[in-house]
Amino acid sequence: MRKYKGYIFDMDGVLYRGDTLIPGAVETLEALRRRGSRLVFVSNNSTRSREDYAERIAELGLPIAEEEIIPATYATARYLAERHAEARVFVVGALGLIKELLEAGLRLVAEPERADILVTGSDPAINYQKLSQATALLLAGKPWVTTNLDRLHPAEDRIIPGAGAVVGALQYVTRRAPDVVVGKPSGHIVEQALSKLGLAREECLIVGDIIESDILAGKNAGIDTALVLTGVVGREEVERSEIKPDYVLESITELGE
Amino acid sequence: MRKYKGYIFDMDGVLYRGDTLIPGAVETLEALRRRGSRLVFVSNNSTRSREDYAERIAELGLPIAEEEIIPATYATARYLAERHAEARVFVVGALGLIKELLEAGLRLVAEPERADILVTGSDPAINYQKLSQATALLLAGKPWVTTNLDRLHPAEDRIIPGAGAVVGALQYVTRRAPDVVVGKPSGHIVEQALSKLGLAREECLIVGDIIESDILAGKNAGIDTALVLTGVVGREEVERSEIKPDYVLESITELGE
Repeated sequence: MRKYKGYIFDMDGVLYRGDTLIPGAVETLEALRRRGSRLVFVSNNSTRSREDYAERIAELGLPIAEEEIIPATYATARYLAERHAEARVFVVGALGLIKELLEAGLRLVAEPERADILVTGSDPAINYQKLSQATALLLAGKPWVTTNLDRLHPAEDRIIPGAGAVVGALQYVTRRAPDVVVGKPSGHIVEQALSKLGLAREECLIVGDIIESDILAGKNAGIDTALVLTGVVGREEVERSEIKPDYVLESITELGE
Repeated sequence: MRKYKGYIFDMDGVLYRGDTLIPGAVETLEALRRRGSRLVFVSNNSTRSREDYAERIAELGLPIAEEEIIPATYATARYLAERHAEARVFVVGALGLIKELLEAGLRLVAEPERADILVTGSDPAINYQKLSQATALLLAGKPWVTTNLDRLHPAEDRIIPGAGAVVGALQYVTRRAPDVVVGKPSGHIVEQALSKLGLAREECLIVGDIIESDILAGKNAGIDTALVLTGVVGREEVERSEIKPDYVLESITELGE
């Protein structure tokens, strides 16, 4: 396959599954770096800050620096800092998201009536009061930015709701949809990755394991796409899907060959 | 207008608004009773048991007996007792719903993996764990019964999310919809009211203030419908709506004239 100057990697299902590395992942990243390729890593995770994420990546033994990682928490904070730097923000989300928003210099408020904008993400401490406060903001017409729309995430021994639980609740009761989705399949997070790579669109490839997330995000951003079969999707599913990746790879190792 | 043998009343917006009685409501109910009409009162409330509701009705000074009230909590318990008496039930809902389910002899379980059926309602104590447990049940294909789908409710000084917040969250993440809706606009709660009245369908009228809830429920159950303008809907909205009530009344008092 073609050699690209820049690679945007999804992580879970591409580099590791749960706590287990995909065989050859470390060697492939090293081979790509030796070849002079630039790498960046994106994730729809909306509960961990970039620092939290880097710690997990280091524990797994992957040769990735904190500055190369763009989780949806960080991407959302960057998006807001660039476009709504003065906004007072009401957050329904996890500590990792709050840390990134504060780190980006945004002003968070605890009282929804003082907020200019609503930011949502997956929230392990979601409750009726937060949903009521967010509902009030949305009924008052305030803009709504969400880290992502993920419906479900695999956890140790089961499947748990993602940011979609918060989005779904608010969407149902207010009949509004988020105004901005930062994470995949939206192109926003890919744009941030491209800007980090500093390369032209046609020189970059996005590599992921979920068609409706990673591959669609690549298509939305107008870059080449590669699906790996080490994650949640099998070859039959690729054939059934209307969204066709440019490459289908057994595993990330095919990139280094 | 025609005199009916049986009347099914919605309560909020028809008999009272917040803590204030609609002028003439008490006298109208008394006049209908003197005329020999049978009355029953239905509500989509999914947080109060019938007993809780009767207490509130008594405080307002309305001449209504506990046995004449069918809140969605009670209606859901009756529905399950008639069709799933042996089922082990996992509830995401308020204390009022739990009380009715227990009162109906249903077996509630705290562990979702032991449950046969999921029951949802508005839940002031909703949290991530409950949403995760309900998600697991739905992904395992278990049946889903909900008290109602109400999006929003008026509270003292603001509008708060209804059972739709729970339904919306679960629907979004699981891509399933409730298998059974008991409250309005479903016909189930109206069927229970009709069975309580013991009258033929054509002898009964449903009276409510919300087109998509009360009037639609009446149409779904095949009975005559009357919209009162003392609630949330004005005459212009009636004219715009495709759902046409048989009668449009300024207030409940027109029934007693």
